[in-house]
Amino acid sequence: MAKKYVDMSKEELTGLNSELQKQYEDIVSSGISLDLSRGKPSKEQLDVSEGLFSALSSSSQCVSSTGFDVRNYGLLQGVEEARNLFADLLGVDPENILVGGNSSLTMQYDAFARCMLFGVGEHRMSWIRQGDAKILCPSPGYDRHFAICEEFRTPMIPVRLTGHGPDMDQVEELVANDPTIKGMFCVPKYSNPTGETYDEKTIRRIAELNPAAKDFRIFWDNAYLYHDFGKVTDVANIFDYTKGTKNEDMVYEFFSTSKITFPGSGVAVMATSKANIDFAMKHMSVQSINSDKINQMRHVIFIKNAENLKEHMKKHAAILKPKFELVEQKFHEAFDGTGIATWTEPNGGYFISLDIFPNTAKTTFNLCKAAGLKITGAGATFPYKKDPESKNLRICPSYASAEDLEKACEVLAVCVKLAATRRLLEVE
Amino acid sequence: MAKKYVDMSKEELTGLNSELQKQYEDIVSSGISLDLSRGKPSKEQLDVSEGLFSALSSSSQCVSSTGFDVRNYGLLQGVEEARNLFADLLGVDPENILVGGNSSLTMQYDAFARCMLFGVGEHRMSWIRQGDAKILCPSPGYDRHFAICEEFRTPMIPVRLTGHGPDMDQVEELVANDPTIKGMFCVPKYSNPTGETYDEKTIRRIAELNPAAKDFRIFWDNAYLYHDFGKVTDVANIFDYTKGTKNEDMVYEFFSTSKITFPGSGVAVMATSKANIDFAMKHMSVQSINSDKINQMRHVIFIKNAENLKEHMKKHAAILKPKFELVEQKFHEAFDGTGIATWTEPNGGYFISLDIFPNTAKTTFNLCKAAGLKITGAGATFPYKKDPESKNLRICPSYASAEDLEKACEVLAVCVKLAATRRLLEVE
Repeated sequence: MAKKYVDMSKEELTGLNSELQKQYEDIVSSGISLDLSRGKPSKEQLDVSEGLFSALSSSSQCVSSTGFDVRNYGLLQGVEEARNLFADLLGVDPENILVGGNSSLTMQYDAFARCMLFGVGEHRMSWIRQGDAKILCPSPGYDRHFAICEEFRTPMIPVRLTGHGPDMDQVEELVANDPTIKGMFCVPKYSNPTGETYDEKTIRRIAELNPAAKDFRIFWDNAYLYHDFGKVTDVANIFDYTKGTKNEDMVYEFFSTSKITFPGSGVAVMATSKANIDFAMKHMSVQSINSDKINQMRHVIFIKNAENLKEHMKKHAAILKPKFELVEQKFHEAFDGTGIATWTEPNGGYFISLDIFPNTAKTTFNLCKAAGLKITGAGATFPYKKDPESKNLRICPSYASAEDLEKACEVLAVCVKLAATRRLLEVE
Repeated sequence: MAKKYVDMSKEELTGLNSELQKQYEDIVSSGISLDLSRGKPSKEQLDVSEGLFSALSSSSQCVSSTGFDVRNYGLLQGVEEARNLFADLLGVDPENILVGGNSSLTMQYDAFARCMLFGVGEHRMSWIRQGDAKILCPSPGYDRHFAICEEFRTPMIPVRLTGHGPDMDQVEELVANDPTIKGMFCVPKYSNPTGETYDEKTIRRIAELNPAAKDFRIFWDNAYLYHDFGKVTDVANIFDYTKGTKNEDMVYEFFSTSKITFPGSGVAVMATSKANIDFAMKHMSVQSINSDKINQMRHVIFIKNAENLKEHMKKHAAILKPKFELVEQKFHEAFDGTGIATWTEPNGGYFISLDIFPNTAKTTFNLCKAAGLKITGAGATFPYKKDPESKNLRICPSYASAEDLEKACEVLAVCVKLAATRRLLEVE
């Protein structure tokens, strides 16, 4: 067992620092080129959806159950087979499903843009015209959610994550007292990057919020709903708690097949109240005649149903799980006893959240970069890239090969340790 | 040869009116259900793209020329093969091509929204913040362009069409003197609905405009560039006149394969200056990781090149041309000599523009509707649905079968004539 860095004497730290510096220089001169920044599937994972290419191979498969030829214009809400499938997958009614194009990010951006430009519904003032529209951002979180807020200049308020969802005491107090707080971004299952899943009590409290803003909206990005690779984790269906209540229109849920079939060539979905769907469609009808219904049909034929999807996801899990285990093993080997790092060991999703010694995230990032290891930018997991303790790193084990992953973890560990010894020696 | 309605005596008109009224009642009691409102391809046309389904059938076809696996995230500007193909089709460089998703309407809406929200480029004020942003709308024109302006509450200024494009004296004077005029929508080839193609002189004058607004933008919707079915009509490439000039950034061109392969399941494109592409991508990168590159690849494999595309379009032409000829023949039979109708006989596109007796468009629409014939709403081809003479009807011959089309034209003719006699009798 290694000694805790904070318990080391100056001499011990100096010796360790010299040793790490030498290891680091050896890495630099060996000329590596590795990448732990890409939250995207590996080639091996893409190959598990090979069947999608031939799932739809003729016009005869393009007639919907109501007789609609999906090769032609129409059906803005999506073809009924796709609405039925996603209704089943998300546990809502088909009337609550709007099947979109290739990107749930686009659906979130566009939903947000509609709030800004047109408000949340008829007779609601647009968020732009109301002036400040602040957004709650459980942090660390998904950088692309924060980018949407920056794009529209909506101030972000970070909210603490507890390990089972956002700190609801904080959320309840904030939304109850400030009518300019208009929304919150959430990733309820295998949250990016912490991997935590909101527990039932947290989801119930979210569903029962009493926001001062009557046009408060929750962007419920359920990207990883079927993306288990460890123990299957259940997440409560928030609509079970909002349906028929005053908060019926409060939640926009998003889902996509990007990490089920092919990233950026799949099918995205918004699930929400009928009133929200109707309002969205009113504006979408100006923007589009329909989403790609042939690709919707192709996915329906390939995915079939929830049971078949779960079997399919096991193939992804079989590839992902060993990679996550490898990273976790390497982290244990490198950090156990040092007291300079903690990390999440999620049961699904795409990320490991690594917390290192405070105020060393940027140094670590720069050391990695100079050595040829690309990692997600320090601070990227926080609004405005401001990690209050400058310690969080998002690790993406999915894309690299096992061999590269092992090497990358070794390099990362040396950089994390070197940054920690430098920091400790400076501080003294 | 029929007698001109305006030259008829009151007795003649009354007799004709009674006769038409009887014909109309016979139609109503026969219980038809026909549709001339749908500017979409027929099933027969969809079948000519059957090969698209099997064009891409395995992962081995998903590696781009630079080695990028298009099944995965990335390449927001589009895969290079698709950029090369569309650059060739549109006569621009691949760096000026942004390949999008399934809808050029969405690309236009989004480009317009970016102008409204973020301005036309770096250090340009958004149109929203500048207050009034007026848009020139050559009319009659495409109702979905007008809908975008209504969506964003940008006042529309109708501009007269000459038969070879907008009245450029009017356009030049308007844009030179009013800095709040920010843009113009154009369909340069087989304009919707008049079918006219802008001539070279008009396009040159558009390219050489001197707008008072330094952030003036032209939305150049080249939807029908390859959609000839009569004599092939050439249209000048506007970028030949803007490239290297002060107006280099003035034009956004749009194109799509919706009426080449499958409507709403094809590939859309924006062509514009490098500076405009970069600015668009900066904002699009917040909205999307990439468009559907697998569908881009599928289309590249199927369309191959300009030569092959032209051969493919001949198959559409062979189906469309007889339908347009049938409508024109029926219109000649019904209206020659009456002086109550003129219509366009385009060489391509999807529409016939029918001008009937002034102030009878709404009556005609209602008569058709009550008889079971659906036509595009009266006024739909003008901003705010305000046809100044209430005489223009957009006829879409593509979707109906020949048999239905023939019957629909007969019904339409009776309604047009009946409305004209009613009007003439009222006026006297």
